[in-house]
Amino acid sequence: MEPIKNIPRLCRTLGYEFANQALLDQALTHRSASNKHNERLEFLGDSILSIVISDALYHQFPKATEGDLSRMRATLVCGKMLAEVAIEFKLGDYLKLGPGELKSGGFRRESILADAVEAIIGAIYLDSGIDNCTRLVLDWYASRLKVIEPINQKDPKTLLQEHLQKFRKPLPVYRVVHTEGDAHEQTFTVECVVENLRQAVVGVASSRRKAEQSAAAQVLELINK
Amino acid sequence: MEPIKNIPRLCRTLGYEFANQALLDQALTHRSASNKHNERLEFLGDSILSIVISDALYHQFPKATEGDLSRMRATLVCGKMLAEVAIEFKLGDYLKLGPGELKSGGFRRESILADAVEAIIGAIYLDSGIDNCTRLVLDWYASRLKVIEPINQKDPKTLLQEHLQKFRKPLPVYRVVHTEGDAHEQTFTVECVVENLRQAVVGVASSRRKAEQSAAAQVLELINK
Repeated sequence: MEPIKNIPRLCRTLGYEFANQALLDQALTHRSASNKHNERLEFLGDSILSIVISDALYHQFPKATEGDLSRMRATLVCGKMLAEVAIEFKLGDYLKLGPGELKSGGFRRESILADAVEAIIGAIYLDSGIDNCTRLVLDWYASRLKVIEPINQKDPKTLLQEHLQKFRKPLPVYRVVHTEGDAHEQTFTVECVVENLRQAVVGVASSRRKAEQSAAAQVLELINK
Repeated sequence: MEPIKNIPRLCRTLGYEFANQALLDQALTHRSASNKHNERLEFLGDSILSIVISDALYHQFPKATEGDLSRMRATLVCGKMLAEVAIEFKLGDYLKLGPGELKSGGFRRESILADAVEAIIGAIYLDSGIDNCTRLVLDWYASRLKVIEPINQKDPKTLLQEHLQKFRKPLPVYRVVHTEGDAHEQTFTVECVVENLRQAVVGVASSRRKAEQSAAAQVLELINK
């Protein structure tokens, strides 16, 4: 395997020097390249990113509802956003991929890039603890935290309605197709029917409202993909 | 509103004395009871619980795959498990609920109990920081962490297959109904068809395998509810 190139440059970009360089090496290694790959570090990094962003949003928006905070967090930690961070770091240049992934352009694939960012966060956490890691992640996210607003974040039902209105289509129809459980722990299955969408989509949740949102989110995914 | 009863007893059970008692008060307040309710604290607590459990599992199972770690984490942080913790704490006795929720037995509802545990975790985090909070959560989870095993955790496709075999039903059929995007960022929509299940269920993800697991998980939810 060829040696990883110019790791010092990557560390300058990250703003962090690893005490244990092997952690960074592992964070950059996709499962296609080696048994000692980055998936366990990604598992850790995912949770660390979540608490760092949650804490930042909680204090930045003292009046925001839990729903708005959750939507802003989802926006900031989604694969697309993490892939943007990866591209700023030119992370594709440093990834270790197996021959198959190399050939098919894996170093450009959003999910591989996003996972590597999470793995790097996990590696820094293990290398020097939560405080250092928090400081760095906040630095990487500074510009994104600066522009995010609760008002830009709409719930899936609102987004779906707006999308359909834009194309002058009928509004979605939500229908409870199943409820189960006692009054104090019911489960609702809600179907969302949208014209021209071949598949029936259902959401299941502990309230009708949440089940509708879940179904709407799935329809949006189908429409937007 | 009647005063909350015997808060010192709850604090002894939690193993924690709040410097700022108002945080605990807020953590115990459901949105039905007051505008100053526990949902924002729950938002924070959810992420803190995730990193505490992730870190514990990462070190406890040095050989476990990311998949096994994720499944164990999901088991430990799910609503059902959190409600168990709440019941150990007799949290229902301390919750502040609005009249409607009181009447319908909201203090027994799993989601309200689970949310309150997360809110208490968020409150402790704000009251005295991540280290104290980690120590406490690990204490609350000690017996659960002791018994959890990667081997008990099965992925949704395996669980669905076993369920159907148990009832001598045909195996589920997975079918890619849609793919989209360039080779390096494809999205797969997979349908999972199961005999006698009225609804078509689809999973959407960045790989065929993940989309199948997502669809299988939804079918399991429909079957088990």
